[in-house]
Amino acid sequence: MTDKKINAKYTVEGRVWINSENFAFTGQGKIELIEKIKVLGSLRKAASEMKMSYRQAWQNIDKMNKLSEKPLVILKRGGKDGGIAEVTEFAENVILAYKNLQTAFDIFIKEQTKKLNI
Amino acid sequence: MTDKKINAKYTVEGRVWINSENFAFTGQGKIELIEKIKVLGSLRKAASEMKMSYRQAWQNIDKMNKLSEKPLVILKRGGKDGGIAEVTEFAENVILAYKNLQTAFDIFIKEQTKKLNI
Repeated sequence: MTDKKINAKYTVEGRVWINSENFAFTGQGKIELIEKIKVLGSLRKAASEMKMSYRQAWQNIDKMNKLSEKPLVILKRGGKDGGIAEVTEFAENVILAYKNLQTAFDIFIKEQTKKLNI
Repeated sequence: MTDKKINAKYTVEGRVWINSENFAFTGQGKIELIEKIKVLGSLRKAASEMKMSYRQAWQNIDKMNKLSEKPLVILKRGGKDGGIAEVTEFAENVILAYKNLQTAFDIFIKEQTKKLNI
């Protein structure tokens, strides 16, 4: 039995994502955008915090909704910020799945880095 | 206890690599080139099988050798094919580490796809 030490010279790196029949939920950015919409209840405020234009954020959400089997964010006109944005239960499930995957992947990366024997 | 089935609608995908202080062993292509050099003993033959020009293969190997702490392939002048190429033990360790990592990652991807609950 020997202690496994992190080999500082070589590390395992990588990335993971969820792919659906229709599209990939690409990128941490879209997940963050949805999370900010959930907290702020407004696409405009969420876009502003993400340093995106409203138009860019709207297009991102619209594209995700259209490509997805169920909508991720429901956009409604009206309200003091020019529109209310509601994150669906489906979107919350997707975000949870992403977080669980990322946690598992972080552990995998650490384990594999320890196992490197170069 | 329930049987977990593969959810065909959503799959986990991703990629992993080994990063060193100096450089990333990027891409399956370079690993394949080294493996072919090992089998064929010749950079020219290996390049030909990879559908690369000799020059391109040489530059790849030269760059990897220079960036690496120890050479991966030793190129010697002479021999009937205009040069003998020897894969070092260090390179073999790198290749083995890559194969082990890829095997573990394939298992990880399958497990995570089964766990998806969207």
